[in-house]
Amino acid sequence: MHDHAREAKARSVVTRKLDNAELHRLTLEEYRKAPKLPVVVVLDNVRSLNNVGSVFRTADALLLEAIWLCGITGTPPHNEIHRTALGAELSVPWHYAPHTLGAVAQLRAAGYIVVAVEQVEGSVPLPSFAPQGDERYALVFGNELRGVAQDVVSRADMCLEIPQFGTKHSFNIAVSVGIVLWDISCKLRALT
Amino acid sequence: MHDHAREAKARSVVTRKLDNAELHRLTLEEYRKAPKLPVVVVLDNVRSLNNVGSVFRTADALLLEAIWLCGITGTPPHNEIHRTALGAELSVPWHYAPHTLGAVAQLRAAGYIVVAVEQVEGSVPLPSFAPQGDERYALVFGNELRGVAQDVVSRADMCLEIPQFGTKHSFNIAVSVGIVLWDISCKLRALT
Repeated sequence: MHDHAREAKARSVVTRKLDNAELHRLTLEEYRKAPKLPVVVVLDNVRSLNNVGSVFRTADALLLEAIWLCGITGTPPHNEIHRTALGAELSVPWHYAPHTLGAVAQLRAAGYIVVAVEQVEGSVPLPSFAPQGDERYALVFGNELRGVAQDVVSRADMCLEIPQFGTKHSFNIAVSVGIVLWDISCKLRALT
Repeated sequence: MHDHAREAKARSVVTRKLDNAELHRLTLEEYRKAPKLPVVVVLDNVRSLNNVGSVFRTADALLLEAIWLCGITGTPPHNEIHRTALGAELSVPWHYAPHTLGAVAQLRAAGYIVVAVEQVEGSVPLPSFAPQGDERYALVFGNELRGVAQDVVSRADMCLEIPQFGTKHSFNIAVSVGIVLWDISCKLRALT
């Protein structure tokens, strides 16, 4: 049996689920003051409000700086965003930009490295990507059908790709955001 | 500027998006024959068909062995599952069990280590979890509101928890599946 499993079985208390109070999550006020991961997410014309809400929830859990909602991407307050964000649309700062290129240009001017998460020639596979502790990253995720627009990809500093081994062409966009943010946040937290 | 970014900028072809044919994904026949990750996902009474479809798509991309759909969890064929699975419900083998406990008992009898992904006393944080190459894992994910049922948690070999730093209590379940599978698949692929 696996070491962790053996160890866990040896602890009699392992099986009790924690209630919400025991999770010691931050209040909105504490969230505002907490040091953030030096990462923002840019959503390039994401159609589904369900996906937008889910990205807010992921960004809250991993303490991102902000989300940029661009083009047709829906913005809070909205019932459908709330249904998956469950209030994370109140904790994570967000901005709206009519054009993704404008948002990307602003973020680059503010010192962010612009990273398009897209399947392109010469993209860096996520496992090989080594984010650096003294940089800030703007991660751009694209529309459900078309991905990140070619003109945004062309102006990115780099492209990052999640390796995939099956029959389908891409992950769901909210899942992609989860995977990429998890991977990068682990690597950045390991540096501190 | 970041090394990857500098390197990417130096390549003139980096910005061209790949079309679907260039992604060289597997056909259904190739998928069936491909070596799988020694992992199955068990969905314990997941309500949303959107989430179920998304899990199929993630399982396809990471070459999982199978998905067990338990209790009220919907099963293919279903339009709403198809809308997010986009055909992955045809590549990834799936089973239905009326009771999650029954599925978990069968999987343990078949040699799987049963891992509940849940916030419990004594859970192992995902970054510390070191899966072993000679083991097989059944990862149990729970209902959108209630999480993994206490009786299933009580019978798991171990519990795994995704560390969270924000205001909300949990990730969306399809995002949790993406994060945990990505993390474990990277660790298992690094062993081979």
